[in-house]
Amino acid sequence: GAGADNDLYINQAIVFIEDAIQYRSINHRVDSKSLWLYRCYYSRTCQWILSLTITVILALAFIEEPSSLTVTSDVRYRLPAWNPPCGLTESIELLCFLMFVIDVSVKSYLIGWKEFWKNKWLIAYILTLIVSLADWIVSLSFFCKENVRIRRILRPFFLLQNSSMMKKTLKSINSTLPEMASVVLLLAVHLSLFTMFAMLLFARTKDNQQDKEWVVYFRNLPDSLTSLLVLLTTANNPDVMIPAYSKNRAYSIFFILFTVLGNLFLMNLLTAIIYNQFRGYLLKSVQSSLFRRRLGIRAAFEVLSSLKETPAGAQQSCVSVGALLQVLQKVEMDSRCKQAIMRSLKMCSCDQLSAAQFQKLFEELDKDAVKQHPPSPEYQSHFMQKMQFAFGHPYFGYLGNVVALANIISICVVLVMDADKQLSERDDFFLGAINCFFILYYLLELLLKILAMGLKRYLSYPSNRFDGLLTVILLILEIATFAVYGFPHPGWRPEFMGLLSLWDMVRLVNMLIVFRFLRIIPNMKFMALVVTTLLDLVKNLRAFAGILLVVFYAFAITGIMLFKGAVQAFFIFNFLIQTPFSIKKVVVLYFKGKKVISWCSAHFQAEVIYCFLYVLSVHLIYRWAKIYFVAWWLISSVIWINLFVALLLENFIHKWDRRCQRESLSDIEYQRTVELMFRDVLEEPTEDELMEKLHQHPHLQLCR
Amino acid sequence: GAGADNDLYINQAIVFIEDAIQYRSINHRVDSKSLWLYRCYYSRTCQWILSLTITVILALAFIEEPSSLTVTSDVRYRLPAWNPPCGLTESIELLCFLMFVIDVSVKSYLIGWKEFWKNKWLIAYILTLIVSLADWIVSLSFFCKENVRIRRILRPFFLLQNSSMMKKTLKSINSTLPEMASVVLLLAVHLSLFTMFAMLLFARTKDNQQDKEWVVYFRNLPDSLTSLLVLLTTANNPDVMIPAYSKNRAYSIFFILFTVLGNLFLMNLLTAIIYNQFRGYLLKSVQSSLFRRRLGIRAAFEVLSSLKETPAGAQQSCVSVGALLQVLQKVEMDSRCKQAIMRSLKMCSCDQLSAAQFQKLFEELDKDAVKQHPPSPEYQSHFMQKMQFAFGHPYFGYLGNVVALANIISICVVLVMDADKQLSERDDFFLGAINCFFILYYLLELLLKILAMGLKRYLSYPSNRFDGLLTVILLILEIATFAVYGFPHPGWRPEFMGLLSLWDMVRLVNMLIVFRFLRIIPNMKFMALVVTTLLDLVKNLRAFAGILLVVFYAFAITGIMLFKGAVQAFFIFNFLIQTPFSIKKVVVLYFKGKKVISWCSAHFQAEVIYCFLYVLSVHLIYRWAKIYFVAWWLISSVIWINLFVALLLENFIHKWDRRCQRESLSDIEYQRTVELMFRDVLEEPTEDELMEKLHQHPHLQLCR
Repeated sequence: GAGADNDLYINQAIVFIEDAIQYRSINHRVDSKSLWLYRCYYSRTCQWILSLTITVILALAFIEEPSSLTVTSDVRYRLPAWNPPCGLTESIELLCFLMFVIDVSVKSYLIGWKEFWKNKWLIAYILTLIVSLADWIVSLSFFCKENVRIRRILRPFFLLQNSSMMKKTLKSINSTLPEMASVVLLLAVHLSLFTMFAMLLFARTKDNQQDKEWVVYFRNLPDSLTSLLVLLTTANNPDVMIPAYSKNRAYSIFFILFTVLGNLFLMNLLTAIIYNQFRGYLLKSVQSSLFRRRLGIRAAFEVLSSLKETPAGAQQSCVSVGALLQVLQKVEMDSRCKQAIMRSLKMCSCDQLSAAQFQKLFEELDKDAVKQHPPSPEYQSHFMQKMQFAFGHPYFGYLGNVVALANIISICVVLVMDADKQLSERDDFFLGAINCFFILYYLLELLLKILAMGLKRYLSYPSNRFDGLLTVILLILEIATFAVYGFPHPGWRPEFMGLLSLWDMVRLVNMLIVFRFLRIIPNMKFMALVVTTLLDLVKNLRAFAGILLVVFYAFAITGIMLFKGAVQAFFIFNFLIQTPFSIKKVVVLYFKGKKVISWCSAHFQAEVIYCFLYVLSVHLIYRWAKIYFVAWWLISSVIWINLFVALLLENFIHKWDRRCQRESLSDIEYQRTVELMFRDVLEEPTEDELMEKLHQHPHLQLCR
Repeated sequence: GAGADNDLYINQAIVFIEDAIQYRSINHRVDSKSLWLYRCYYSRTCQWILSLTITVILALAFIEEPSSLTVTSDVRYRLPAWNPPCGLTESIELLCFLMFVIDVSVKSYLIGWKEFWKNKWLIAYILTLIVSLADWIVSLSFFCKENVRIRRILRPFFLLQNSSMMKKTLKSINSTLPEMASVVLLLAVHLSLFTMFAMLLFARTKDNQQDKEWVVYFRNLPDSLTSLLVLLTTANNPDVMIPAYSKNRAYSIFFILFTVLGNLFLMNLLTAIIYNQFRGYLLKSVQSSLFRRRLGIRAAFEVLSSLKETPAGAQQSCVSVGALLQVLQKVEMDSRCKQAIMRSLKMCSCDQLSAAQFQKLFEELDKDAVKQHPPSPEYQSHFMQKMQFAFGHPYFGYLGNVVALANIISICVVLVMDADKQLSERDDFFLGAINCFFILYYLLELLLKILAMGLKRYLSYPSNRFDGLLTVILLILEIATFAVYGFPHPGWRPEFMGLLSLWDMVRLVNMLIVFRFLRIIPNMKFMALVVTTLLDLVKNLRAFAGILLVVFYAFAITGIMLFKGAVQAFFIFNFLIQTPFSIKKVVVLYFKGKKVISWCSAHFQAEVIYCFLYVLSVHLIYRWAKIYFVAWWLISSVIWINLFVALLLENFIHKWDRRCQRESLSDIEYQRTVELMFRDVLEEPTEDELMEKLHQHPHLQLCR
């Protein structure tokens, strides 16, 4: 009947608006039951369970057999890792797989059969599940004694497919691949041509004294290739050219040409290419989000306009305010937004809303909360008003910064003076007295500021919250110190009492004071800009970090499987983490493998990372390890670092351009989002685009 | 009289047009004598003499006293360097100074007294000369025994002031400095805050076993600062964190935070800032060049229009074609351009030229020579026409590439097979026979191509010239081999004869074959793009390279003066060159100074660079050396490398954007210049701007 129809329309509108809020696609089934299932599936509980499942299956690696997660990393002292009995991790795995099966079925059902075949991600999801389950069965039938477990390498896929942001990012990385491949090919050509030159140039000669270069670096093709590949990381520069150079200075031309072409030009070309490809990335992704939002709102409008209540004679389709209010009450959204929409709906005098009005109502979603700081208290007394003016003035804040700087300098002076003193010679009186004075000032500052601004207004500024919290902690620490060790006096060096010694207490106080000094950041424009850029970057990097995690996980598991028995899983983890940050050292020690044997056995605990490499080379899997290593170097050091630089450039340059325009607005504290950053460049989708897309919807039949 | 006036106007026009061609400023004196002097000064001879003088004065460093330029760098074998007698270098210097005095007087005279005071470069030039001459007098009065020679550090200034491109670049680097300084300040704050944290965190404890971290890395303020500064170059990563890490894993958080913030964020922020500042740099510089050119042409028009021949009644000022022809004949310019202008002038039917027509005539200057390849010969015979079609077809070129690739692969295979063979086992027959066959093919290809294209057309392509030249050299080498060693046969291993052994000949041939393989570059689009980008980059980098040379020279001379006696000048040169390419190794060995003592004495010859550092540290100038080192690291590794990346990004992104538009034009080979790259973005200066600038000319009084 009409009532049931109306209910359906209302429900559809609710879901479409929720889709718009979450930037989700609206291409799903829209009958009553499916809508219920859809809202269930995207409810917080269900999504939370799904995330938990993914976390659990990824975390299994830490307790599965070749894992070496123990309390200490020192191989001399640690106990053998706990080995879960066969079937324990496997049953957890099965549970996770079942969850994924449910997930994929619901997802497939919701988008419909036709759409399912177009969605490569879903098909890949199902294939992954089938392979995993098959592998699981094999695993159980061998009583967990089998060597290769493919399903472990496939695990990060579950993380990947669950995040639309990561899928989008992967797509745009994918579109960069052809160009990246060209540069990598160019690098390969460069490398191989120079390798041939090197082999011809540094050939074996009759005089054994003369061909040191040949013996050490260019004995055969793999050696030559390796020498030059390592030169590309500059790890063996200038060692590699010294023997030839001492024979004839002209040989250095070869190495200089190679380094300049490979290192300076081709490597930086990769940065240029990746940056060039990612220049539009952020804008494009924000633009498509905007389109999804407008589409969801428009879809909601269209279904609501089909409601039977609508006056029959209306020329244009429109929506009654009542219906919208009914929908809004059931939509899950930020309460601030909801209230703002309700308010403007009530202020609107008309009874019917056109499409444009409807769209305009929901623009509230795009707006960020302009923070309204609560007002300062109004004092009657003239004296109090003067106080308020004095301590509410920015100069009082600057004075606080100066005092904090003075405190830091005093700590620094004491540290320098005490640097070489024996513990027994040290006197904590001076530092104790100084800090006592400064902390009193901080307390005073806190109280005066609260007096001037009122508690609510004071707390509404994040910098004040940071400052106040640290001041309170410092005060508590100071009181605790006095309670335990008494007041400072010359020769104040009491015995150890309570939880921490006096010296530890003083150190902790000092560290907090240094940390508190960061409150100057918002006062320095350039610093504030840098910090906000960094925060934005972190937001935008989440998807990249996720993909890196996926690759990292796959690499780690592959490494554990490849080098099983040879090395502990923990070593591989450490090695993978270290590569991008100390590539040269890793390389140097890797290729000096045989020389570090004695050093390795002496320092086995300390420098596990390199000893892993030594162990690798001893275990005769040298060539495999080399390929594994080069692949990881390319991905982590070359590609990922360049992606990072490209994103940083993109973010920073946008910010910088905008800075000048925003100068005047700086008083209002926006909660900056990526959407906001591009506000003035974004294009609103046109009515036609929206309607065309709506008519392509696989499940929604619009009346007209 | 009118005749003399007319002569003056003609001369002025000539000089203005020459200014326009060379993109020079027109703000110089314009009376007859000054014009004569001006043309003299900018004549090729005078400029060449000036350049020679600058080269000579810079080159003096190689033979002056603390120099160590000898044939071998091995300190064990080399003779003491030749010490020029006191007065020799000094008299050469005096000659150079006299040249510079003449140079600065002419320049100052030509721009006029008023302008002189506005020109800071000229004033600095004069000051530098005065200081240098004073220093020279002091030097002679001490009979060359004085220690400090300031004039040597000032020398690179003469190079700097003589190049307008370098001055322009320096100006734009200068405008980037505030932002760079902000980031460097940020780095300093980052470093000092973390240093304080580290000193508080890794303080001396009672248990001597527990404070390894303190002993090795954080003993006092300078040590801590150094440890973290080195961590910023990642040279001591992860060594620096190992002692703390093995005590408690949580300490690694400190080091990870430091590295991520400092290395990943702040260092890359520097790239972003420098790129952001240099984004418009190329465009702006090309734009101002264009303005200078248009201004020069316009000035020539204005003076020519004041000629008495002009009909008095003309409404608009205009120039007679005859006068222009007269001027053109005397102007020194590219003959192709001159002919083109003459031709279009003759084709123009009118007798008088308006300003617009005049300007349009000289647009020929902006155009690049569109290379017209000579036509192919036209054969009568049907057979020859078919041959011509077959061998003139691109596919024949591709076939040649495939054959070259096959040749390279065969060489590679032989190299791999021969890699571990003793010299006595090696048989050169196989390689000799293969190369013989391939070289015959190359010859055939060369002849057939000449047949198809005609010699002139063949030679008009650079890739063909490259290819042909190498083929001829290969042929000559091969014939020489056969003439000396006979034809190849199994067991072909004759004794040494002539200049080179057979093995050396074969190696040389192989190297040339590998080199010849580069002919594939123009056939691969992406490679061609990269290569043209690199060539452009080299052009644009000249100014930067010049400034780097200036800084390098100043640093080298300062180093020689600071560490006089402690180290050889040659070591300092090597050290400065190596820093950007193997910063980590330099750092590591620098700070392990005391440990490398035995290693240094053993390998003194081979690794001079590091031993220099060791010697430094022994000579108790440790702290000076550290500051010197950090300054050079900042300039060479951080700033210059980032400048390079910024320029590469700028160039590459412009090229890439343009590639798509140009796709259709790719048949026409442009001689690409920076001006051309920006052709479609450049703004033509308006008439008003030009006239306003002309009226501001300090020496030219225009009639109206």
